Amino acid sequence: MPRYRATVAYDGTRYAGWQVQPGCITVQGELQRVLGIMTESKVVVHGSGRTDQGAHARGQVVHFDLKWARDLDRLHLGMNGLLEDDIRVRDVKLAAPRFHSRIEAVSKEYRYFIWNDEILLPDVRLTHAHLKDRLDVDAMNAAARHLVGEHDFAAFTASSRNIIETTVRRLYSVAVSRKGHVVMIRATGNGFLFRMMRSIAGHLIRVGQGIERPETTRDILKSAKRTGRVKTAPPHGLFLWKVTY
Amino acid sequence: MPRYRATVAYDGTRYAGWQVQPGCITVQGELQRVLGIMTESKVVVHGSGRTDQGAHARGQVVHFDLKWARDLDRLHLGMNGLLEDDIRVRDVKLAAPRFHSRIEAVSKEYRYFIWNDEILLPDVRLTHAHLKDRLDVDAMNAAARHLVGEHDFAAFTASSRNIIETTVRRLYSVAVSRKGHVVMIRATGNGFLFRMMRSIAGHLIRVGQGIERPETTRDILKSAKRTGRVKTAPPHGLFLWKVTY
Repeated sequence: MPRYRATVAYDGTRYAGWQVQPGCITVQGELQRVLGIMTESKVVVHGSGRTDQGAHARGQVVHFDLKWARDLDRLHLGMNGLLEDDIRVRDVKLAAPRFHSRIEAVSKEYRYFIWNDEILLPDVRLTHAHLKDRLDVDAMNAAARHLVGEHDFAAFTASSRNIIETTVRRLYSVAVSRKGHVVMIRATGNGFLFRMMRSIAGHLIRVGQGIERPETTRDILKSAKRTGRVKTAPPHGLFLWKVTY
Repeated sequence: MPRYRATVAYDGTRYAGWQVQPGCITVQGELQRVLGIMTESKVVVHGSGRTDQGAHARGQVVHFDLKWARDLDRLHLGMNGLLEDDIRVRDVKLAAPRFHSRIEAVSKEYRYFIWNDEILLPDVRLTHAHLKDRLDVDAMNAAARHLVGEHDFAAFTASSRNIIETTVRRLYSVAVSRKGHVVMIRATGNGFLFRMMRSIAGHLIRVGQGIERPETTRDILKSAKRTGRVKTAPPHGLFLWKVTY
């Protein structure tokens, strides 16, 4: 069975997240549905990771096996022809037979977008969180620096769903920038725990609001315990931007 | 009757354009509806100009009269509270009794956004036109320069709906820029005819595609006749960006 690898972008607004759930429309479910129609068989699509309900992607990477080899252009056009326009396959390639989109990911980049002005403009409302009061980007960057490196990120994940797994991850970079009314948090790392990027964004926002001082980030990290002090930022500001292999 | 002036932004995707039409949901209609609820009377909202079905605004300016004076903050919050989140009132002010949003506009700025890459990413699909082949931005700018100044723009408007009105307008600037996969056309002028900005965008796109040479822009302009040579670009790439008084 030939294995394929595809880069997928989506506007997550209409979807109950990435992962297939009974009775819900999900991105994984839609990809499996159209591949099922095209191949007249059941196809399982494996993503590099889940994304939450309402969160978006520009560079989710997936792999799947088909019963026989297909013309890549036809496969690509066929999938985009059957998908709604809020999911797009950016490219499809033949992958190594054992390629795995989650296990072999070397680094991931997430971006979190905030509209930081009095009124949330309608054209950015589905892709930006909204905060009226001006965020202190310098303080956010000072806090972000504590997160870079290898750490136990237990304080920045939602209740551990798999207690066996380690909560140690390495972040290569976390940086906050402002451009006009948009504040962007950009993080790259070797892996992200469940809700980790939204928790980091939620914490950095509180630093930017002056509720927490940047030095507290180190203490919260060291505590390795999730408490109410770390808030989870809303999903619709989040993009899975890029996965590197 | 006190007169108010407001700046309004909208995502035009769901609306049959700006102007009230029987049986259609329009932006003007929605503003009139919520002011009607708030004041328990019929309110007419006058815009600086119409926008087409699917076109957007960040800075539409409107005026309307209310029977008696209102607290501005309450009026502002009340309108945004009743409107769907794809229309936002950015500000409301008390206006001079004879202020007119259309007649007194000194200059308008429109921006037209094009996603110029193979695959249209879902998160930009409602606010960008899509062109796969790389546009020649230098050629587009060379063509755009012919449009600057006072001209008869009859060749760049849709079939004249009001034959009495002059088709002479003055454009202060027309500039095309690229940033990553986004090509933006930005035009400012003392007024824009019906579908003029979409016609300019449609023409400049054909220059960018190499179908028309930049020199033809001057000839088309001089002809003062709309022909099939000038195409109308799709509405969803268009934003009424700013109106100056």
